[in-house]
Amino acid sequence: MSTLTDTLVPSYLSGAWVTPENPTRVTEVHDAATGEVVATVSTDGLDLAGAIEYARDVGQRNLRELTIHERSLKLKELALYLGEHKEELYELAYQTGATQRDNGIDIDGGIQTMFVYSSKGRRELPNGHVIVDGPTEILSRDSSFLGTHIYTTLPGVAVQINAFNFPVWGMLEKFAPSFIAGMPTLVKPATPSGYVTAACVRLMIESGILPEGSLQLISGSARDLLDHLDHRDHVAFTGSAATAATLRSHDNVLRHGVRFTAEADSLNAAILGADVTEDSPEFEAYIKALFVEMTAKAGQKCTAVRRAIVPTSLQGAVADALAARLHDKIVPGDPRDPSATMGPLVSVDQRADVAAAVDRLVAAGGTVVTGGSAQLDGAFFAPTILTFDDADTDAVHDVEAFGPVVSIIGYTDTDDALRLAARGKGSLVASVITHSPELAATYAHNIGAFHGRLHFLDRDDAKTSTGHGSPLPHLVHGGPGRAGGGEELGGIRGVKHYMQRTAIQGTPDHLTAITGEWVRGAQVNKVTRADVEAGTAVHPFRKDLATLQIGDQFASDLRHVSLEEILEFAEKTGDTFYAHVDEEAATANPFFPRRVAHGYLLVSWAAGLFVEPAPGPVLANYGLENLRFITPVTYDDSVRIELTAKRITPRVTDDYGEVCWDAALFNQNDELVASYDVLTLVEKVNTTYANWNQ
Amino acid sequence: MSTLTDTLVPSYLSGAWVTPENPTRVTEVHDAATGEVVATVSTDGLDLAGAIEYARDVGQRNLRELTIHERSLKLKELALYLGEHKEELYELAYQTGATQRDNGIDIDGGIQTMFVYSSKGRRELPNGHVIVDGPTEILSRDSSFLGTHIYTTLPGVAVQINAFNFPVWGMLEKFAPSFIAGMPTLVKPATPSGYVTAACVRLMIESGILPEGSLQLISGSARDLLDHLDHRDHVAFTGSAATAATLRSHDNVLRHGVRFTAEADSLNAAILGADVTEDSPEFEAYIKALFVEMTAKAGQKCTAVRRAIVPTSLQGAVADALAARLHDKIVPGDPRDPSATMGPLVSVDQRADVAAAVDRLVAAGGTVVTGGSAQLDGAFFAPTILTFDDADTDAVHDVEAFGPVVSIIGYTDTDDALRLAARGKGSLVASVITHSPELAATYAHNIGAFHGRLHFLDRDDAKTSTGHGSPLPHLVHGGPGRAGGGEELGGIRGVKHYMQRTAIQGTPDHLTAITGEWVRGAQVNKVTRADVEAGTAVHPFRKDLATLQIGDQFASDLRHVSLEEILEFAEKTGDTFYAHVDEEAATANPFFPRRVAHGYLLVSWAAGLFVEPAPGPVLANYGLENLRFITPVTYDDSVRIELTAKRITPRVTDDYGEVCWDAALFNQNDELVASYDVLTLVEKVNTTYANWNQ
Repeated sequence: MSTLTDTLVPSYLSGAWVTPENPTRVTEVHDAATGEVVATVSTDGLDLAGAIEYARDVGQRNLRELTIHERSLKLKELALYLGEHKEELYELAYQTGATQRDNGIDIDGGIQTMFVYSSKGRRELPNGHVIVDGPTEILSRDSSFLGTHIYTTLPGVAVQINAFNFPVWGMLEKFAPSFIAGMPTLVKPATPSGYVTAACVRLMIESGILPEGSLQLISGSARDLLDHLDHRDHVAFTGSAATAATLRSHDNVLRHGVRFTAEADSLNAAILGADVTEDSPEFEAYIKALFVEMTAKAGQKCTAVRRAIVPTSLQGAVADALAARLHDKIVPGDPRDPSATMGPLVSVDQRADVAAAVDRLVAAGGTVVTGGSAQLDGAFFAPTILTFDDADTDAVHDVEAFGPVVSIIGYTDTDDALRLAARGKGSLVASVITHSPELAATYAHNIGAFHGRLHFLDRDDAKTSTGHGSPLPHLVHGGPGRAGGGEELGGIRGVKHYMQRTAIQGTPDHLTAITGEWVRGAQVNKVTRADVEAGTAVHPFRKDLATLQIGDQFASDLRHVSLEEILEFAEKTGDTFYAHVDEEAATANPFFPRRVAHGYLLVSWAAGLFVEPAPGPVLANYGLENLRFITPVTYDDSVRIELTAKRITPRVTDDYGEVCWDAALFNQNDELVASYDVLTLVEKVNTTYANWNQ
Repeated sequence: MSTLTDTLVPSYLSGAWVTPENPTRVTEVHDAATGEVVATVSTDGLDLAGAIEYARDVGQRNLRELTIHERSLKLKELALYLGEHKEELYELAYQTGATQRDNGIDIDGGIQTMFVYSSKGRRELPNGHVIVDGPTEILSRDSSFLGTHIYTTLPGVAVQINAFNFPVWGMLEKFAPSFIAGMPTLVKPATPSGYVTAACVRLMIESGILPEGSLQLISGSARDLLDHLDHRDHVAFTGSAATAATLRSHDNVLRHGVRFTAEADSLNAAILGADVTEDSPEFEAYIKALFVEMTAKAGQKCTAVRRAIVPTSLQGAVADALAARLHDKIVPGDPRDPSATMGPLVSVDQRADVAAAVDRLVAAGGTVVTGGSAQLDGAFFAPTILTFDDADTDAVHDVEAFGPVVSIIGYTDTDDALRLAARGKGSLVASVITHSPELAATYAHNIGAFHGRLHFLDRDDAKTSTGHGSPLPHLVHGGPGRAGGGEELGGIRGVKHYMQRTAIQGTPDHLTAITGEWVRGAQVNKVTRADVEAGTAVHPFRKDLATLQIGDQFASDLRHVSLEEILEFAEKTGDTFYAHVDEEAATANPFFPRRVAHGYLLVSWAAGLFVEPAPGPVLANYGLENLRFITPVTYDDSVRIELTAKRITPRVTDDYGEVCWDAALFNQNDELVASYDVLTLVEKVNTTYANWNQ
């Protein structure tokens, strides 16, 4: 890795590693602990416009050749590869001031995010290119005109502009969802730690796993990057609110449809519930949470707690307990020194910013309980606790010291705490420490809209919680107002940020072709029991995924329903609910004409009507969705089923896949009796029972 | 209504109708056909800051006292009231140039939107204040730490800034979702037709249906409105791209978290598919669609077709057929004249804008087939068809003539048509006329990301389609890029635009209290069959909605599964799938140990295990959701069920409501065998069978 640190950090643009030939504007990057120059960056003369076109052209084309599941699987391969090489990244990251614990958050956390996305992409999304959103809407009486919604990939480039604090996670948490969505990425890391990002990109490229054009890197200033973006492109920014506002003011954002989202620092709160006393387990959990938030990444996390909001009566106790824990546990030092438990800030510039912010807080009335100034050589800043007599001091709610600094303020009652929390004007996250579910609900309902995430802690999850400051790939990250108004992650919600939602109107046949899911009313390839018995057609259950098509339908004959069968089913199953067995009571029910068949009897019979019993490619019925009983069925009615292949999802890692069948159960008058989806596993090629004796 | 038209149009602010006392800045509004002054507007001296505070305070508080269903029901009442008084609005709207057909779109369309939202709010949302988004995520091995997402109401005011073309629909399509979400609205209509909006607001206020503070109106200039908004508030703008950019540049949007969405005019396309010939029914459908888009509202619709993209070979035929239809059907005239089939533009200013745009199109190479200039007195402009030899002429894709004007361009093949469609740089809607589902899919997959809506038309939906230009409340409205990048409507998607999505982390008890939905692992009030038989506890099925609570649980005893019962079930139902009846074949199946019980047998037995047979408040089981078979059950296993009240939704209009029960089926080793939700209807108060002899 010596070339990355001894000389200019290269960029990876248009399929090649490039460095400026004779750069005039060069920025030096220093080791956070020792102050040595560890890298230089410059983008002088690099062709950023060309890189954008390359992404839109080569990147888009190559990504489009893969399905959502194929892309998801590549994320897993990439995560495994990075896991095997993560030591290289650890070594570099020490120079940014990150301790081994910090590397766990950044590097292992980034890799873990890719694993989660790989899994979710394959479990929760279709194995194609289009995601269907929500149910079909019937827009005409005769169902010839329908509506639905689809997501398709945005046609441009996904630009990341990242903060210095998470050089690996910050890239991967944006890359994973955009890659699954099929959008090529252009990464622009922050200069103080961009060499770690560059090393990670180099590993990703060297892995050979990524399609050409799907990942590019700018090491150094973004220069005129936004000048080249338009309505096809997406910019995800993480950093200061001031920079977010500057980027948002760009003419291409204001007037030319560049999609811009921001995740900015915020004055996150941790609130100690009114139910907590100094003796309760929640008090200790609260102190531990504050401690972690102050010291992990030396407090350089957008999500770190800046405001500790506690009952006024406990303000002193909280300050004392936290100070004691810091005193006991924190040994500041060079991250390469195993005895160090907290590293420096990323740079002396950053240290100066934090010192200035602390000075402002003190000037506004803050009392320093511990810390308050720089320490050691290098970019070290002492863990700092401030307390305020006046909880409404503006600076507490407006000034962010982006380091190991927390302000403790007191509240009088829960309404006061709700009001103080909202004074953050929008935050990424707040924690509420309470063992009262009712109090938790009060907080969630009243301050939810000011936050992207709310984290509730008590004795029951104190040990298992992933912590206030940790965004998880499963949950949305981002927040309103001061936090930037953006949203990232949140499982497949994050994937959809890189896609356009479009309403689709048309006939059942139009919608079926567009969504890849059979819609009721669309063309079918209908097979009856008589066809099967005559040998003139194949039952859809005898087709493997190589031959089955959406629209393949089995239509059963009618089966008569007798009272005796209803009563026998009641007796055998124990389901003697009066509607099935008591004529008088059933008739009094507002929904039933008289005794009716059990819904469970109907779906059991339906299976009997549609099933093809002999071994074949259909391996199992693993579930049912959206079952609704629509028209009651009474004795001497008859029922028949139409079962139609609706959605086919071959797995990329198995010899089988999911087939979802539309099931429509009708009575003798062709009224819809029940409607549901039957979920089955079907072999890609009929193998297990290929030579089975029937 | 004479005060509205003869004098200053009043505003409705902070609970009162107000007009400036001695306004210095007054704008006159003219009848579109006759040029008479019909109204004047001014906001001089009106307290807009006070109105915003009033909404945030009084409006928020009053709306919060109603549940989502209660608010939804009020929309229906309001829609009925407006329906009874719509003639008053028709009369006023004629002055804006709207014909009776146009009033059907604007006034009846607006009322219809409220009906749809009223229905969707009650059918698709919970009857509370919080909307749960997506499934629970298990974040720790022991399930003590979970995650989910909720939507809560934004804490500020929903400001509407609307366009002149739909003074009623434009307000109501934004009001309906924000009202359901619980956000108070401040409407700022466009001056040329704002007096119609004011009349509608007056009706809404006079109805007495709306909670105080939930609707305010600014008649006239918005002045410094945005100066008073912050991260709590939402601005939904409809109008020109230029005004959108100006509003988006406001410091409170750039830096202070005002949520801003825009729906701007766009160069919408209607594409005639390559499969269509002059003789096919799709050709006629295409001409009719173009005709409607040109003439409805005299082409003053954000969604109107501006670009007709047709096979080059059909360019002349399309122009001729469309010109002939215009000639046959269009009689321009005062909308109050029953023989008029197209009205004037809204104002002579608007007519001048359209004329200038047509001049630019002609200067760029457009040939006028028909029309091209103003006609009659007043603000009339002749329906205008332009054709271009060069389909790539920039002006075709950039210049919007916001009137009855269409440009017809030719494409060489489908790839060329896709490319030309995308040159709109983001549109609200495109139509594709094709009878080929495959071609429809090609279009949807390639130009979907450039559009908010795609409308597919062929012989099968030509009669039932609601048309290219009609946004529907069920489907999203808005589009990327030039169309403003916003999204409105789309059923409950539109409601969520006025709410904040927040990730929630905590224990099962935390999540249960916050969401109002019981989560597995949370506290239960457990009842067994022995409890029921001993009379020491009440079966949950004997509780009506007045007494039932989430967490009420019935836990059954174990029931043994015998091979005989499996075989008998197979025989009785006809479901003789080999996994249940053929030991050798079942054992060869990768998922089953040997012959297994049918999933349908297990859920039937589960019902037998949990049911309380006698008549009571539980009226029906109307469905099942999320059924998954997790662990196979073979003979000599046993199963038991835990059924827990998960979600309770009393209806506002009926004597009963929905209860969703969590069903967890376990085997003798406490392994989860099946998991699902049971959907039932339960009386609010046990009435039907209150005095039933058991």
